[in-house]
Amino acid sequence: MSQRNDGMIHDAGTSATLPFAAAKGDDIMQAFSAVLGPAGMVADDAGRAPYETDWRGKYHGRSLAVLRPADTAQVAAVMRICAHHGIAIVPQGGNTGLCGGATPNTAGRQIILSLQRMRRLRSIDAEGASITCEAGMPLAEAQGHAEAAGLLLPISIASEGTATVGGAVATNAGGLNVLHYGSMRGMVLGVEAVLPDGSLWSDLGGLRKDNTGYAVSSLLTGSEGTLAVVTAACLALSPRPSGHTTFLAGLDDPGQALAMLSALRAGAAEAVTAWELFSTVSADILRSEPPHLTLPLARAHGWYLLGEVSHFGPPSDAQAATLERLANLCDDLGLDDIVQATSQAQRASLWALREGISTAERSLGPSLKHDVSVSPGRVAGLATALVSECADLVPGLRLNVFGHVGDGNLHINALPLERGVAMPDRVADAVTRHIYDRTHDAGGSFSAEHGVGQAKRAEMLRYKPPDHLRVLRAIKSALDPQGLMNPGKVLP
Amino acid sequence: MSQRNDGMIHDAGTSATLPFAAAKGDDIMQAFSAVLGPAGMVADDAGRAPYETDWRGKYHGRSLAVLRPADTAQVAAVMRICAHHGIAIVPQGGNTGLCGGATPNTAGRQIILSLQRMRRLRSIDAEGASITCEAGMPLAEAQGHAEAAGLLLPISIASEGTATVGGAVATNAGGLNVLHYGSMRGMVLGVEAVLPDGSLWSDLGGLRKDNTGYAVSSLLTGSEGTLAVVTAACLALSPRPSGHTTFLAGLDDPGQALAMLSALRAGAAEAVTAWELFSTVSADILRSEPPHLTLPLARAHGWYLLGEVSHFGPPSDAQAATLERLANLCDDLGLDDIVQATSQAQRASLWALREGISTAERSLGPSLKHDVSVSPGRVAGLATALVSECADLVPGLRLNVFGHVGDGNLHINALPLERGVAMPDRVADAVTRHIYDRTHDAGGSFSAEHGVGQAKRAEMLRYKPPDHLRVLRAIKSALDPQGLMNPGKVLP
Repeated sequence: MSQRNDGMIHDAGTSATLPFAAAKGDDIMQAFSAVLGPAGMVADDAGRAPYETDWRGKYHGRSLAVLRPADTAQVAAVMRICAHHGIAIVPQGGNTGLCGGATPNTAGRQIILSLQRMRRLRSIDAEGASITCEAGMPLAEAQGHAEAAGLLLPISIASEGTATVGGAVATNAGGLNVLHYGSMRGMVLGVEAVLPDGSLWSDLGGLRKDNTGYAVSSLLTGSEGTLAVVTAACLALSPRPSGHTTFLAGLDDPGQALAMLSALRAGAAEAVTAWELFSTVSADILRSEPPHLTLPLARAHGWYLLGEVSHFGPPSDAQAATLERLANLCDDLGLDDIVQATSQAQRASLWALREGISTAERSLGPSLKHDVSVSPGRVAGLATALVSECADLVPGLRLNVFGHVGDGNLHINALPLERGVAMPDRVADAVTRHIYDRTHDAGGSFSAEHGVGQAKRAEMLRYKPPDHLRVLRAIKSALDPQGLMNPGKVLP
Repeated sequence: MSQRNDGMIHDAGTSATLPFAAAKGDDIMQAFSAVLGPAGMVADDAGRAPYETDWRGKYHGRSLAVLRPADTAQVAAVMRICAHHGIAIVPQGGNTGLCGGATPNTAGRQIILSLQRMRRLRSIDAEGASITCEAGMPLAEAQGHAEAAGLLLPISIASEGTATVGGAVATNAGGLNVLHYGSMRGMVLGVEAVLPDGSLWSDLGGLRKDNTGYAVSSLLTGSEGTLAVVTAACLALSPRPSGHTTFLAGLDDPGQALAMLSALRAGAAEAVTAWELFSTVSADILRSEPPHLTLPLARAHGWYLLGEVSHFGPPSDAQAATLERLANLCDDLGLDDIVQATSQAQRASLWALREGISTAERSLGPSLKHDVSVSPGRVAGLATALVSECADLVPGLRLNVFGHVGDGNLHINALPLERGVAMPDRVADAVTRHIYDRTHDAGGSFSAEHGVGQAKRAEMLRYKPPDHLRVLRAIKSALDPQGLMNPGKVLP
């Protein structure tokens, strides 16, 4: 890729930034068009609409243009045009984020830079166990390439059919298998990204170790498009499991989930790849709402644990040994209501429970969502306390608590008090404040995996020490001195 | 810790930086002394000497003062004094680095900030599987705390008895177990660090997931003291293995090591925790030099593989199964000269071979060291090519090649042509250039785990694209605008 000036907008004599008002709108559009061609621009309002609203319909913006570059050189050319004219850029992948991070503001002066046309597989290296793909490739497609090479891209999020590699990198996506495989940042061996001045950061060598300078690829991962546009990533792959032991257990207390996890990990080689908790409210709405699922247990409990252990290699005694160990651990903890999947179909039906929780919640109307984390040793106490305290705070309030308990990360969603009706702002604010305050007091985070976007900027101001915000702003100014990258996101 | 101005040096009216020449040396020393007390300063030349030279005696500097703060508040106070007077700071941990990153220049105007007095265990969280310790704690001591809690701090480097937690974080240390557990950056859940203006970054909550802003702790990890001083770190711990299968095999070609690793990982749950290659030259010098060790194999080979698989849980058939699988893999690859350790003593004697290579090399005199990495799929080809090409380049040259082949990381050290005599500069430069050029052509790194320090700044300029250097410099300027943090290191 040429990193040189494209010569169309910049020329030797004029390097100053023109204020937006002074730039001629038609000239700018012609410049974009000259770089991208007709296939790279969405001209009409109807075509732009799906890009200007997030998939849940919660955030609405209006863009100057939706640009769909075909390669990294086009991204760089677009960035240079934007830098010259002072136009802000909102990068967008699959548009499946939960915090409005990919939605422009309503002024109609920001461009949406969609990476969806850049979805090539650059390379897959079975011996080096890595895959390099462009930002717009859907995660599920990247998973498929890994599978074809006999390997696993171990990220598992609900939106993986639509969410893109670039979006998952930009938001440091988490999901179901973080416990064993880590979040996206841990899989990123390097990224290719275009900086706001059109220059390139490219670190796609597939190196497992490289101590030559700062961890820029790690820094760009999770920066939500506020520092640069990720155009490709090299991700580490893992061996594929040959089988799974999947079970569902009723619990009295979420602490039992943690105790069982500690004992299981300490005592065996098994890869514990998922450890998902959900509450009695989750079970209730699974039954009462679509998908109308009933738990295959003997009786109701306060909490439930869906656990999965991955096995590797040829069929062996490993699964039997795991089942025996699980049975012993359940005995030790006094857990007597547990089912194990004995077929792929049963495994799928257990996972359908976990995956159905969000669907069931949606059918009740607008809920109040939180995505918090604390050190795993503190998560059980936090969950128990919040369920009880929020019910005291707002009589009748039901908290749908579910998530990645092994990582210390729970989704704590307050269901609407009345079906289909959003909670009054005053009540919602009080509930959110209580949940975040308690999490913060326990040393935790108000956004474990969903990011900040535009949704949680106020929380950044409230919970981050001023010294931290200064550091974040200094980094932002260093890489994006004009403030053109996804303004109004992440930083308060 | 108070983050406020200490009032001693700054006062309300004077916030400008004084040039060094204008500052009165005695006043500065008195300011340091007032903050640190006599225990916190090394006054005499003899006392300062061990801090001013690296442990190998390769880098020599002269300091204005050696400061030994007792806590983070003292570090912050020192940083504010330095900021006010424009004094540069060289942070130092165990002083075991290999690239001169902790040695000041010779001008006598930089202070050495030793973290060695800050060695407290802040906390250990068995359920959350994390340890928080101060920067000056030796790695071996942190490993011991983890062991006492029934867990493993999975970093293993030769200098771990002296190297500190802070130094290992600042250099993103690697070592023997990166293959399974990753480098230090992957273990760092968060750091506490003091920025050059005396402000604090503290991220010690032990969170496994946190997507609120940029990955500053990841960025500071591996930044070699050029952005901030790491004063404490929270590190993830792992389950302790209950046993190991350790073996040594003779190879014809380093590619066999990679093939065996891929097959072993694909087919089993075992944790392959070490995969170390060494060359026939390594075996020769182990025998001819102290520690005078002979390989317990039937005959000589071109290459050797020392592998280790970790087992977890109660004694079981796992070890027998692993041994059988290894035997089958060796059959498949035509390897017929292999020994397995059948006792802890035998395991230790196999590891003594690997650990003796550096000792043997040292006894020959000054060697020419390189620490390169490529994508693991390319490392065998690179090793074979370099051995042959360097012998062509310099007749009689012997390359001692050893290291972490599973990570794509090899130490490629040219032995002195004459015992005890450093290679002529012209020859050394040609060999180094060839090794780095070939590595670079293969998409690799000229410093996989040792860092840049002062030793490899010229390589930064030669091999990093100008766009990359601009990004690194922008980050440096953002966090250290006065350029006081470890100047002359990392950035060219």
